[in-house]
Amino acid sequence: MFLSDCQARLAFDLISNTWNAVVLWSLRHGPRRPADLRAEIGGISAKVLTETLRRLEFNGLVTRQAYAEAPPRVEYELTALGRSLLEPIGVLGEWAFAHADEVMAAQDEGPARKL
Amino acid sequence: MFLSDCQARLAFDLISNTWNAVVLWSLRHGPRRPADLRAEIGGISAKVLTETLRRLEFNGLVTRQAYAEAPPRVEYELTALGRSLLEPIGVLGEWAFAHADEVMAAQDEGPARKL
Repeated sequence: MFLSDCQARLAFDLISNTWNAVVLWSLRHGPRRPADLRAEIGGISAKVLTETLRRLEFNGLVTRQAYAEAPPRVEYELTALGRSLLEPIGVLGEWAFAHADEVMAAQDEGPARKL
Repeated sequence: MFLSDCQARLAFDLISNTWNAVVLWSLRHGPRRPADLRAEIGGISAKVLTETLRRLEFNGLVTRQAYAEAPPRVEYELTALGRSLLEPIGVLGEWAFAHADEVMAAQDEGPARKL
């Protein structure tokens, strides 16, 4: 059962933090500054965005580049590894668009029997 | 940004519980009894398996069928909706096989700078 092994768990853990997936997706067209990411994503605080970017960097999915300008400029960019995760994220996103209302309908319907 | 909307969050939440994905995957070949699922998956307690199956049922991804036999028999089966989630799970599982050691190598290397 490949899904119960350690490697698969790691992948599901990475994608399980929705912000990870959202931020990776926002970087798909190239390097971005944190302020631009915040503006595009919406609903993410500066603190949570910073934590997310550091987590992605720690996992080898993005790189951080600081430019010694005045004012200093920082950009984040997908690594090849981070780019490779766009496909699974895209497939799951497409599934969500196609099927999320079926899930919500099932939830509204409530359990067929007592939990 | 499609990923920050409610529908996508729901999909990522569903898949974020690794047991959800593991149990759905274990049901891909047809109806199974809980005891058989436990034997195949390994490392999942009866309590956690039961909770996972009820969560999947609540979300419309599996159905429960109880047979009035002696001893009583219970089976779980994927719904069409649950079956549709096999593809995203498979794509993510394949990514894990191809890339998980790169992630682990990045983690071992440690942060390029202090977090």
